[in-house]
Amino acid sequence: MNNFTFYSPTYFAFGKGEEQRAGQLVKRFGGSRVLLHYGGGSAVRTGLLDRVKRSLEENGVSFTQLGGVQPNPRSGLVYEGIELCRRENVDFVLAVGGGSVIDSAKAIAAGTIYEGDFWEFYQGKSVEKALPVGTVLTIAAAGSEGSPDSVITREDGMLKRGASGEALRPVFSILNPALTQTLSPYQTACGITDMMAHLFERYFTTTKEVEVTDRMIEGLLLALIHEGPRAVADPDNYEARANLMWAGMMAHNNSCGVGRNQDWASHDIEHELSALYDCAHGAGLAVVFPAWMKYVYKKDVMRFAQVAVRVWGCSMDFANPESTALAGIAAFEHFLTSIGMPTRLSGLGAREEDIGKLAHTACYGNGRQGHIGGFVCLQQQDVEQIYRLAL
Amino acid sequence: MNNFTFYSPTYFAFGKGEEQRAGQLVKRFGGSRVLLHYGGGSAVRTGLLDRVKRSLEENGVSFTQLGGVQPNPRSGLVYEGIELCRRENVDFVLAVGGGSVIDSAKAIAAGTIYEGDFWEFYQGKSVEKALPVGTVLTIAAAGSEGSPDSVITREDGMLKRGASGEALRPVFSILNPALTQTLSPYQTACGITDMMAHLFERYFTTTKEVEVTDRMIEGLLLALIHEGPRAVADPDNYEARANLMWAGMMAHNNSCGVGRNQDWASHDIEHELSALYDCAHGAGLAVVFPAWMKYVYKKDVMRFAQVAVRVWGCSMDFANPESTALAGIAAFEHFLTSIGMPTRLSGLGAREEDIGKLAHTACYGNGRQGHIGGFVCLQQQDVEQIYRLAL
Repeated sequence: MNNFTFYSPTYFAFGKGEEQRAGQLVKRFGGSRVLLHYGGGSAVRTGLLDRVKRSLEENGVSFTQLGGVQPNPRSGLVYEGIELCRRENVDFVLAVGGGSVIDSAKAIAAGTIYEGDFWEFYQGKSVEKALPVGTVLTIAAAGSEGSPDSVITREDGMLKRGASGEALRPVFSILNPALTQTLSPYQTACGITDMMAHLFERYFTTTKEVEVTDRMIEGLLLALIHEGPRAVADPDNYEARANLMWAGMMAHNNSCGVGRNQDWASHDIEHELSALYDCAHGAGLAVVFPAWMKYVYKKDVMRFAQVAVRVWGCSMDFANPESTALAGIAAFEHFLTSIGMPTRLSGLGAREEDIGKLAHTACYGNGRQGHIGGFVCLQQQDVEQIYRLAL
Repeated sequence: MNNFTFYSPTYFAFGKGEEQRAGQLVKRFGGSRVLLHYGGGSAVRTGLLDRVKRSLEENGVSFTQLGGVQPNPRSGLVYEGIELCRRENVDFVLAVGGGSVIDSAKAIAAGTIYEGDFWEFYQGKSVEKALPVGTVLTIAAAGSEGSPDSVITREDGMLKRGASGEALRPVFSILNPALTQTLSPYQTACGITDMMAHLFERYFTTTKEVEVTDRMIEGLLLALIHEGPRAVADPDNYEARANLMWAGMMAHNNSCGVGRNQDWASHDIEHELSALYDCAHGAGLAVVFPAWMKYVYKKDVMRFAQVAVRVWGCSMDFANPESTALAGIAAFEHFLTSIGMPTRLSGLGAREEDIGKLAHTACYGNGRQGHIGGFVCLQQQDVEQIYRLAL
């Protein structure tokens, strides 16, 4: 196991009705002038935004609003938010929404108190300071409610890039599973896929002797495999939603990823798809991840056999571990199909003729040196072949 | 799943040599005049204490010292520490040792800035404020390095009682697995048993639909079953020590215990043993927990069958789930024996004639109302029978 630091100081308020604590928690964590940041219809339509505003008012917290965050959140709105926060002397950013809203809020929080262009953080500069961010989560998927990460898409060139830094961990996150009951089966399945991807990115490692984090990841995957289809089949199932919501946080706050190198090539490969075609990140991952697995599994057949046996319930073929490894990948792909995810590029509206460009940007985009991935180091021609495996 | 809050703001520095960061971390978290609190021989003998002192000096942090913490830490030394901290205007307590040292440090940290008697916190008063506590952990077991809990034994009457409160979470904890390589196989096995007990106390719940935390607990147990015997057989195995150390923290910081009621009767029943006979807490748990399981398993046979199948690898007897449940308990007991733990009261030097008194104190000791346990509510005669099952 490698040396590591782990610091997850987010305060989580979890359960029915917890959004009523938003105002109290903003105050507890030092906010007095809030930017209330959200997406579009659903937070307004369901009355959630009004409940949050009421909670702020009841606690004497003033606020200004900025809605309109799109999936794959854009840099344009971030610049707008930064200007607004500076003008209004905002000291706290409260995100009401899913990963896109939270990521946009984090970018605004970092950018507001930075003299340069916030985009520098998305070109590799570490985020040392930001306004405090709180969240009221409405989609269990991205894990951004407990992570030090943010992903933003820059309109000129449709570049999708990530920033990271301890200052980006939310100071509090309110997780009410009932808020996710309005999600469609498709949105729910995208979320489940994203969570599984966060776990697999950590699982496939070259670090030896990491049994404790292996077992935690496997446990979370098993829970997702059990709860995911229940939430897809019955969107109103509170208990399934609750299990998914905590799993989504645990999958990405890195308590199960510490001390091991991680991969993240599939995320990089996917980001090019959702940036170019504006597809859902989870759907993109459903296409990319099985293809990545098929391309790289020979690097460590026994690790792929392990996940096949422990997570997918495959029998171990002791005479031919490779067949077990492949059976696990097939089981994953079958699971994705069963919850309604595409597993082919055509399902995203992606075009074969774009593959060269996609692979090039994935490997040479902002700050990258021609290769991606920590488990297997992939170059442009490898990435092209992975895209082709998903045709 | 029940509503819950989860807040674990401890900064963890994990790995070889990390104790060199002690001074830097004390400063980061606001300390300038430190009480350095430790036990007896080993931290001095191994040179660890000198390395920590050097790190404090290099960072311009002044300190005063108080050693002599015993296993089952005593109230007398806590009073001494409180007086010392007040006299020396200490603003930070740094524990160098295992759970006993950390628990003693937490008691001193809370008591120093409290006007009343610190023991009130161990009679049920919640700890709202305390001096910040940092830890350099030398035994993976108690989980106190990441928990909001502390257990102290009061000399008059040998009462062992716990306190709790967010203010008792360490602000940082340094976890260097190499420091645990000096532990004997017996001490190591006690630690493994304590970690497993922390997981089982959470696992046995009456809350329905808690698959995600079930799976996390099972994963941690599986890792302990794999790594524990490796560390007992080869105390110098750094990798096994590292896995155990992170598992010990995760087993008790409650990320796998949220949203579900928990039991904790076995800890209460054990505390009477280690208070009266001054045995190791882990050894006491090895005696109590299997007996508790045998006494209560009929409350939820399928939950006991689940852990038997998922954790102990038993085959499910679909015609007779009770036999599977019992096979799991037997497997646990066999595991404890295999790592050198006692599973009978005689192995602790406990006497049959004390059982009545032990059971009475467990149920009626400070603040208790004649019953203990969240999974099954136990009264004095139940506790007596559990002790008798361990004869």
